[in-house]
Amino acid sequence: MSTLNNSTNIFWQECPVGKVERQKLLNQKGCVVWITGLSGSGKSTLACSLSRELHSKGKLSYILDGDNLRHGLNKDLGFKAEDRAENIRRVGEVAKLFSDAGLICIASLISPYRKDRDACRAMLPDASFIEVFMNMPLELCESRDAKGLYKLARAGKIKGFTGIDDPYERPLNCEIEIEQKDGVCPKPAALAGQVVSYLEEKGFLQVE
Amino acid sequence: MSTLNNSTNIFWQECPVGKVERQKLLNQKGCVVWITGLSGSGKSTLACSLSRELHSKGKLSYILDGDNLRHGLNKDLGFKAEDRAENIRRVGEVAKLFSDAGLICIASLISPYRKDRDACRAMLPDASFIEVFMNMPLELCESRDAKGLYKLARAGKIKGFTGIDDPYERPLNCEIEIEQKDGVCPKPAALAGQVVSYLEEKGFLQVE
Repeated sequence: MSTLNNSTNIFWQECPVGKVERQKLLNQKGCVVWITGLSGSGKSTLACSLSRELHSKGKLSYILDGDNLRHGLNKDLGFKAEDRAENIRRVGEVAKLFSDAGLICIASLISPYRKDRDACRAMLPDASFIEVFMNMPLELCESRDAKGLYKLARAGKIKGFTGIDDPYERPLNCEIEIEQKDGVCPKPAALAGQVVSYLEEKGFLQVE
Repeated sequence: MSTLNNSTNIFWQECPVGKVERQKLLNQKGCVVWITGLSGSGKSTLACSLSRELHSKGKLSYILDGDNLRHGLNKDLGFKAEDRAENIRRVGEVAKLFSDAGLICIASLISPYRKDRDACRAMLPDASFIEVFMNMPLELCESRDAKGLYKLARAGKIKGFTGIDDPYERPLNCEIEIEQKDGVCPKPAALAGQVVSYLEEKGFLQVE
């Protein structure tokens, strides 16, 4: 519409049915569960298990999977630094919309850089960004290698692979950290239970 | 991850809780109500009214407003031709996610080009893209001019304004057309009722 700049002539439209009303309808509070960690650390497995647990409690969640979104919303993006950042920014923005819609939005992305994750956290209302760190040893992730990507990265056929020749920046203050216990990785349902307990405790699974 | 191309090394993650389960939980079917028309034709008013009507029936909807999204997801986009197309593409992709989540997603955008709207329609499963054309005369929209944009466009201070110096391509086969009756524009609640009736008739407001 405008030839001036990006934010000119854009108005904000308010509506009588808002987040509060939607949350009442759903009897839950919108939030974002952001699962971060290495490839093969179990992000997608946790996301699925969590969505199943929530569904069994009658709660509505939706998974934004980093890989899946690259087939649609983010299909114009590659893997150079600015594209990766833009990929995460868009997922953050969409997660924010889902949270505003009243859903428990489960985002599952490697999201290796602290800066990008913190930018998504900053988009959301206080305490409604729940960062879950899949703190699994690289050796374990690499030994799983379900997608065969570590092998390709080790062979130099993929460049800039997180954990191999690109850094993963561990969260400094995440809400939930998932770890092995006595060298054993807890079962998905147990991990999901850990997140559900957190959500219950913080009051996300009901409205007052 | 990859240096090859955008779609390399991206896997598709399936999950046991899917659209069908979410629709059952909500007792409704996910779809996209895409409201198109000139600036000032009443798109946002209809979107709000529709969301209120649906909420009063216990149905979960969410509005994607073209202007609002330009503050967030699409804030990197301007108004040149490719940016406008990308703007609509992203809204279509996000609408698809909301529909997949089981919501009645109400998208409200001028979306002047048939090609862009049809691309969004093509993203969605059969019959779940419901195009609503706000067929209001330019003179009426211009006389409202709530945002003062027509005035600016007529004065040449905005270039490429839809309806003034950029075309609006009318839908050829939209599902719902909203028109004046005897020179009078129906009340928002009546318009919303027309859309709700359509959704009821097509079975979107319940699951079998």
